[in-house]
Amino acid sequence: MLKFQEVLSRLTAYWAEQGAMTVQPFNTEVGAGTANPATALRVLGPEPWRVAYVEPSVRPDDSRYGENPNRLQTHTQFQVILKPDPGNPQELYLESLAAIGIDLDAHDVRFVEDNWASPALGAWGLGWEVWLDGMEITQFTYFQQMGGVTLSPTSVEITYGLERIVMALQGVNHFKDIQYAPGISYGEAFGQVEYEMSRYYLDDADIDTARRLYDLHEAEATLMIERRLPVPAYYNLLKCSHTFNVLDARGVVSTAERARAFSTMRRLSRDVASLWVERREENGFPLGTVEPPVAAEPLPLPAPATAPSTLLFEIGLEELPAGEVERAQDWLGATVRERLGATRLTFGAVRALATPRRLVVLVDDVAVRESDATETVRGPRATAAFDAAGAPTRAATGFAGKHGVDPAALEHVQVDGVEYVSFVRQLPGRAAAEVLSSLLADVVRDLHAERNMRWSDPDLAYVRPIRWLLAFLGDQPLPVTAGALTSGTSTRVLRLASTPTVEVTSADGYEDFLRGHDILLDRSQRRRVILEAAHGLAASAGGRVDEDVDGGVVDEIVDLVEWPVPVRGSFDERYLELPPEILIAVMRKHQRYLPIRQEDGTGLLAGFVTFANGSCDLDVVANGNAAVVRARFEDASFFWAADRRRSLADLHAGLEKLTFETSLGSMAQRSARIARIAASVAARTGLNPADSATVERAGALAKFDLASQMVVEMTSLAGTMARYYALAAGESEAVATALGDMERPRSSEDSPASTLPGAVLALADRADLLAGLFAIGASPSGSKDPFGLRRAALGLVATLHAHPELAGLSVPDLLETAAEALRAQGLEVPRKALEQAATFVVRRQERAYVEAGHDVDLVTAVLPLAATPAATTAVLAEVEKLVAGGLIGGFVEGVQRARRLIGNADRPAAGSPLDVSADPSSQRLAEVYGQARTAGYAPGASLSKLVEASAPLVTALHAFLEDVQVMAPEPAVRQARIAILSAISDVAETTGLDWEALSRAVKIDAQGTPR
Amino acid sequence: MLKFQEVLSRLTAYWAEQGAMTVQPFNTEVGAGTANPATALRVLGPEPWRVAYVEPSVRPDDSRYGENPNRLQTHTQFQVILKPDPGNPQELYLESLAAIGIDLDAHDVRFVEDNWASPALGAWGLGWEVWLDGMEITQFTYFQQMGGVTLSPTSVEITYGLERIVMALQGVNHFKDIQYAPGISYGEAFGQVEYEMSRYYLDDADIDTARRLYDLHEAEATLMIERRLPVPAYYNLLKCSHTFNVLDARGVVSTAERARAFSTMRRLSRDVASLWVERREENGFPLGTVEPPVAAEPLPLPAPATAPSTLLFEIGLEELPAGEVERAQDWLGATVRERLGATRLTFGAVRALATPRRLVVLVDDVAVRESDATETVRGPRATAAFDAAGAPTRAATGFAGKHGVDPAALEHVQVDGVEYVSFVRQLPGRAAAEVLSSLLADVVRDLHAERNMRWSDPDLAYVRPIRWLLAFLGDQPLPVTAGALTSGTSTRVLRLASTPTVEVTSADGYEDFLRGHDILLDRSQRRRVILEAAHGLAASAGGRVDEDVDGGVVDEIVDLVEWPVPVRGSFDERYLELPPEILIAVMRKHQRYLPIRQEDGTGLLAGFVTFANGSCDLDVVANGNAAVVRARFEDASFFWAADRRRSLADLHAGLEKLTFETSLGSMAQRSARIARIAASVAARTGLNPADSATVERAGALAKFDLASQMVVEMTSLAGTMARYYALAAGESEAVATALGDMERPRSSEDSPASTLPGAVLALADRADLLAGLFAIGASPSGSKDPFGLRRAALGLVATLHAHPELAGLSVPDLLETAAEALRAQGLEVPRKALEQAATFVVRRQERAYVEAGHDVDLVTAVLPLAATPAATTAVLAEVEKLVAGGLIGGFVEGVQRARRLIGNADRPAAGSPLDVSADPSSQRLAEVYGQARTAGYAPGASLSKLVEASAPLVTALHAFLEDVQVMAPEPAVRQARIAILSAISDVAETTGLDWEALSRAVKIDAQGTPR
Repeated sequence: MLKFQEVLSRLTAYWAEQGAMTVQPFNTEVGAGTANPATALRVLGPEPWRVAYVEPSVRPDDSRYGENPNRLQTHTQFQVILKPDPGNPQELYLESLAAIGIDLDAHDVRFVEDNWASPALGAWGLGWEVWLDGMEITQFTYFQQMGGVTLSPTSVEITYGLERIVMALQGVNHFKDIQYAPGISYGEAFGQVEYEMSRYYLDDADIDTARRLYDLHEAEATLMIERRLPVPAYYNLLKCSHTFNVLDARGVVSTAERARAFSTMRRLSRDVASLWVERREENGFPLGTVEPPVAAEPLPLPAPATAPSTLLFEIGLEELPAGEVERAQDWLGATVRERLGATRLTFGAVRALATPRRLVVLVDDVAVRESDATETVRGPRATAAFDAAGAPTRAATGFAGKHGVDPAALEHVQVDGVEYVSFVRQLPGRAAAEVLSSLLADVVRDLHAERNMRWSDPDLAYVRPIRWLLAFLGDQPLPVTAGALTSGTSTRVLRLASTPTVEVTSADGYEDFLRGHDILLDRSQRRRVILEAAHGLAASAGGRVDEDVDGGVVDEIVDLVEWPVPVRGSFDERYLELPPEILIAVMRKHQRYLPIRQEDGTGLLAGFVTFANGSCDLDVVANGNAAVVRARFEDASFFWAADRRRSLADLHAGLEKLTFETSLGSMAQRSARIARIAASVAARTGLNPADSATVERAGALAKFDLASQMVVEMTSLAGTMARYYALAAGESEAVATALGDMERPRSSEDSPASTLPGAVLALADRADLLAGLFAIGASPSGSKDPFGLRRAALGLVATLHAHPELAGLSVPDLLETAAEALRAQGLEVPRKALEQAATFVVRRQERAYVEAGHDVDLVTAVLPLAATPAATTAVLAEVEKLVAGGLIGGFVEGVQRARRLIGNADRPAAGSPLDVSADPSSQRLAEVYGQARTAGYAPGASLSKLVEASAPLVTALHAFLEDVQVMAPEPAVRQARIAILSAISDVAETTGLDWEALSRAVKIDAQGTPR
Repeated sequence: MLKFQEVLSRLTAYWAEQGAMTVQPFNTEVGAGTANPATALRVLGPEPWRVAYVEPSVRPDDSRYGENPNRLQTHTQFQVILKPDPGNPQELYLESLAAIGIDLDAHDVRFVEDNWASPALGAWGLGWEVWLDGMEITQFTYFQQMGGVTLSPTSVEITYGLERIVMALQGVNHFKDIQYAPGISYGEAFGQVEYEMSRYYLDDADIDTARRLYDLHEAEATLMIERRLPVPAYYNLLKCSHTFNVLDARGVVSTAERARAFSTMRRLSRDVASLWVERREENGFPLGTVEPPVAAEPLPLPAPATAPSTLLFEIGLEELPAGEVERAQDWLGATVRERLGATRLTFGAVRALATPRRLVVLVDDVAVRESDATETVRGPRATAAFDAAGAPTRAATGFAGKHGVDPAALEHVQVDGVEYVSFVRQLPGRAAAEVLSSLLADVVRDLHAERNMRWSDPDLAYVRPIRWLLAFLGDQPLPVTAGALTSGTSTRVLRLASTPTVEVTSADGYEDFLRGHDILLDRSQRRRVILEAAHGLAASAGGRVDEDVDGGVVDEIVDLVEWPVPVRGSFDERYLELPPEILIAVMRKHQRYLPIRQEDGTGLLAGFVTFANGSCDLDVVANGNAAVVRARFEDASFFWAADRRRSLADLHAGLEKLTFETSLGSMAQRSARIARIAASVAARTGLNPADSATVERAGALAKFDLASQMVVEMTSLAGTMARYYALAAGESEAVATALGDMERPRSSEDSPASTLPGAVLALADRADLLAGLFAIGASPSGSKDPFGLRRAALGLVATLHAHPELAGLSVPDLLETAAEALRAQGLEVPRKALEQAATFVVRRQERAYVEAGHDVDLVTAVLPLAATPAATTAVLAEVEKLVAGGLIGGFVEGVQRARRLIGNADRPAAGSPLDVSADPSSQRLAEVYGQARTAGYAPGASLSKLVEASAPLVTALHAFLEDVQVMAPEPAVRQARIAILSAISDVAETTGLDWEALSRAVKIDAQGTPR
């Protein structure tokens, strides 16, 4: 069994063998290996750099007095930087695991999407966390930007979490039990240090001292930038950063302080980064500059086939994010289909398939070659092409010469009545291989995701590196070259297969070929296999997997593995004492486990189902995963106990320290606003005294659980924990439930608050969010909606629907109430912003109706009512019912014809007496109108009532419109006709509907006639 | 060729194999590996600890912008702590050198005394610097105290200087050329960092910021002590320390600030250390506690020999300091001789011999056993021993019973006239082996040096660890057990011999036996070999070695090697452009090289002679030593150039930053005092205007070179560099020489200032030193004389002798002048202190006379004159001449007889008329006296003159004293006789001599009669 220090030395030796320089940990506190200048500065600029080092990483916030088994104020990272990307960093990494004694045949090693961004450093990268039997042991990132500087070349960063790895290797459950050196445990050697530094960071560091240290180092860093010395500037920046972390751990960073600090550190990072690059350039880039890679010699184009063949094209990748697999597969299928369609090749069915590591398109029956074609090439005007003698002019001979045809052979072509000389060029069809070779190369170059990255290849950009191309037309390999990649004849199968790279001989049967190598190419097949296995394993444990609830996890697993191997894990039953939401959140969110639920649905069993990728030692993997979940549950237990030891008031006070948004203050301020808005809504809604009291108490506690360790760790448990902690603290069931309800609905699938007080708080929450963020101009744009305003809008609407008591509330009123709360805290809320917010809600509601399958025109028709969403929905239902009953067509047609005929004519002022004396036709219609009024055709009546009461009127109206010319030449007659039509329309228009849209919906065209 | 990083990993691996834990460099700046808590805290308390780690050590003061080949602001240490001492740390260390590819057969590896103390940390230890071909590559220390806590067990600290080692291994001359990793040089990787951090530390760090950082960390450390958290306290202390070093490198630490900082850091270190030990104890010493070693089973006592045999006793040691070898050898010989003499063993010649690694005593002809003896044991008084009946009383039977003799056999013995019962006990002689076994064990236990240390053995204490004992009586091994050591039958020869441990079979021929193993046991033989070889090698280079000048180096080499192997090295001739004093200082002081001088004595050749210990590859060793000297000369060249770029005023201003002594201010203050004193002395001495101007100018510059880099590096060049730099700056030859002269004489061998202005300055320098340090009570005590006051006193005296113009100056006057200068700076100087200082000078002068072979009594006789030392010396010479000529005995005898006879009688008041009218004898004598006065026997005349003028008077005086009774009964007669004798004596006493002593010297005993 390797000791901790032996793991360090083996990793060092391994990476040194791979050409990495070994440097020392940095000699001032850093929060991560990334912060060591050997990473933070060296990834900048064009110089190559390959380095490996140990980095004790100080995270004051993770101080636990040495009590928590997995958390230390200083943990040990091993950091590797490969610059440029060597092309096979994952393979190098896996070998390093073998070098420290991890049996890769037994374990399940996975690359699970995990991107990295440090806005404070102006830095980001894409990559993975590496899982060893479900445990995150390494962060693997392709750095794209650092200090605001876009990196070229990019660097691969590999960060090993050594305590975790060694705990797994040694099979111990507490970091103190790690054998550090022969005969010395981690706890024996460093337990006291861990305790004392935890005391320091959490309890004893002097706050005023730390604040002053921060300011001094900030000033010093700024000064060094002025002096053009990036190294000491950075060194002081690191001291700033550490001091800030100490203050944070001491729990005294105010919102304003945090905002200021982050802005300062971001500025300093950017200055340091750009200055470092400048200085390296001034020094002539002492380590040289990186040359980009060059593609290998492509395969020769194959000889043309004799019969149509199957096309296989595979784009080989490093593990895609689960969310990208299906999207990319669909894009690939559609794109290949479309682009092939634009050629003169014939082809059969196009089928796209995908796994996390490959995008495959298979096309049946691709023709041997394109059909031939011709093209008429136009020259000068005929009149200018020949002289009077009929001899070709210089224009003609020039044109002919340029195209290599005999001037005598030029023909004539007429275009738009003008005659030109021309000739017909033969376009012989190209061989399929030639067509495909360039078409597929373009596909690779055009493959992009929403968020793309760079790796060593200067010409390609995608969500993860593309590492190989495979193209076959029948049994002929096709050359495809894109960027530095060129297609070969092999594919890569499971990384840990005995032969990870295999030769391919034909496009036909490729899916089966891959299955033979433990790759299940078809996503739906993988889903089926996963579900069957999960159900089976859960049943074997006496429980069940709930596909309805946990379907999202299944979907993710489908795109996390190429060959799903089910593994059942278990955990100690004592963890079942924790609220099930916690256990489920841990298993689902962090681990992508399917919880095993009791058959009767009442709760959980102490087990889960997970999936390995490809064959492994099931016991080893099950045990490994069990250890991971135990560690996480242990953490949760720690939080659960620690949080409950604090009073709700204390927790609520903690909101002061949590920034909500720089301009909008802390979470405490937001909590206060929610309380105020909720009280106002409660008053307006006429809640009973009990519910009012509940709103008041829950409002006073609003969001308090955001300051709990549990929610800080797992934000998805906000509200859930509020409910548990409130109950534990002796609050009433009503208050606790209201606090939980306040966060609902969490998603479009979630149901809104079940209780009225909860719903009032939920409205207040959403109204504050919307009004506040629109007030500061932070409305969502494109795909960016960091504060979840779209979800908030829908949640607000859903909540208003859920409780009849609230149905009458209007969105602008709610937003105005929220604005008052914001203004009461001294924030400005422009009127325009509130209108935008209201419109935003309407648009979300509109979209929701449409997505729910409502007719677009009907939705448009009712949308003018949307200020009160519940009412709108009721009207929509009413209209739909009328439409479905065929009851409304004539009415709408009539009203709309009338509205269109009177158009912009001078309609009488509303409420003026109806004067139709000048026209008998109008008098007759007015009579019927009068009867309809009596029957209920009156302003403010519901649409159904109007329809019901207007049946004779509609008949009379249509007859009137057929018979008379409304716009009669005689003014008095015209006036009478307009008057009666206006009267009828006016009543209909009191419904507030969009009659244009309504008329479209009931199939009346713009001319007022049925479609 | 190993790369830098490979050396690190090999060392790590090697020490891990030896059971050392591997830890990381500390994550805040430390000045040395010692400061890492893995050393600084872990050496405290009883827990075992064996650790190895790399430590980038930050020394802002060593910043050189990356330009200096050997100096970096951050250099890389490799640190090993072995706690407890494993018994063979040197052997383990040597193996580690082999592990990094050093061919120990080819190189010369030496352990050269170098002790370590950090008063700021309350820490000290004894040990060596390890030389590889003359280059210091490692510091090897037995820690004795840390943070004021005495260490038990002690720890071995091994600190490798990696840049140096790797430069030697790779054969490069600049740290930037070190191959750090394959294809990457140190300079390419870290050159910019070195430059920028040098800029930061030397030029750009904000001073006010650093001061405030210091204060904050100090306060925080103090607070953490209060909270009983030694770890964060220490962490803040390290930040204090680093910040202080930054301030120091920025050159702004005032005297007061430095004193305050050191006192604070010392307090904090002590608090941290004691608190750490307490806390470890509270935690139950998690790593266990160290058990002391136990001695092996001793050899059996041999059977008695049949004839007298040779005794061999060897005490085997780790390398002794050169200065201890001879002292210990002499002690061993004397002690064994004395203690053997106290036994009843007969023995022949005792001969002690020594090398750095062994103390040997050989005793010829030790008897087989002690002679037998008897002892009379005394019992009760005879009267009490027998009753009236003659039967023994209980007293007698009790006594007899106790000693196991028959009461009837008791005899009588008479003591002081009282009769006791007694019996004679037989004391049979013990076998020699038995006697020697315990005698030699006591010798080992009693072996101590001036400064002793502890190692793993709890019962022994010496200047370096004793590692083996070897004792033979003839061919029989003797058991000797002391502490955990027990004698065996083997000795250790050269460490790098093919068989480093060899069996010994007999005491006889041991010296030859050792010679056969390349150990030259006899110091005088080694000296002879060294001198012959040095002369030979120097001659072969066309030059010579100057034994007179460099004899001290030869003496040191004698005690640095067991088998001197001469090596001639050379250096680039361009270094001869440096002042020879610098080259010589480097070669002698740092390297113990013998400079090769030109045959004609005009200067140096570019070469040196050094000595390896035992056989080696001469070329390798010569090249290695040449590289070392080149590096040092390169440093010196750097300083030489850098210093001369600064103005003298600028250098002088630098004295502000140098503390002289906490209470006495900075060197700048001392310089000002020297200038003031010198001016005063010059005025008093009546210097001519040119000399006065020289004194004034040189006084204004006094000590400026102490602020130069060269002198900071090599303090022995103070004055020498002042002269060079003054000349280079355009000062006159007179001023430059005066500045150089000011520091002379440097030692008792050195000559005083050659010029008068220089002498005046030298006097001022010494007077300030003496007056100042006595004023603050810092007079030398025991062997402690940190400010060299003894040397200063002698220098002052010597200087007064050297220039007739100064001969009249009195020491008290000089000290009073110095006191005025001190007072002018606001310092208090008690009168008493000045008197003590003057007495101190007199005592030194007295001792110097005696040591120079002057008769003790004569010295005592002239000492009352010693306020003006030069005059004293003149008188002494005069007296000695008179004594040698036999001219003075009668005179002194006469005067002294007269003085004794009149004793305490009422002598007439001085100057009163001589009235001898009452006594004719007196009248006659007065008459002769009157003639003598006329001849020159007068107050104030020199002793010679008195002797010359008093010849008839002496005769008359003696006759008078023979003839008359001075103390005649008649008062008038007595008065007359006293009057004339007083008159004669009074004149003699104006010489100021101590007549008691003088009379002893001229062999007149206390009774006034010739001895």
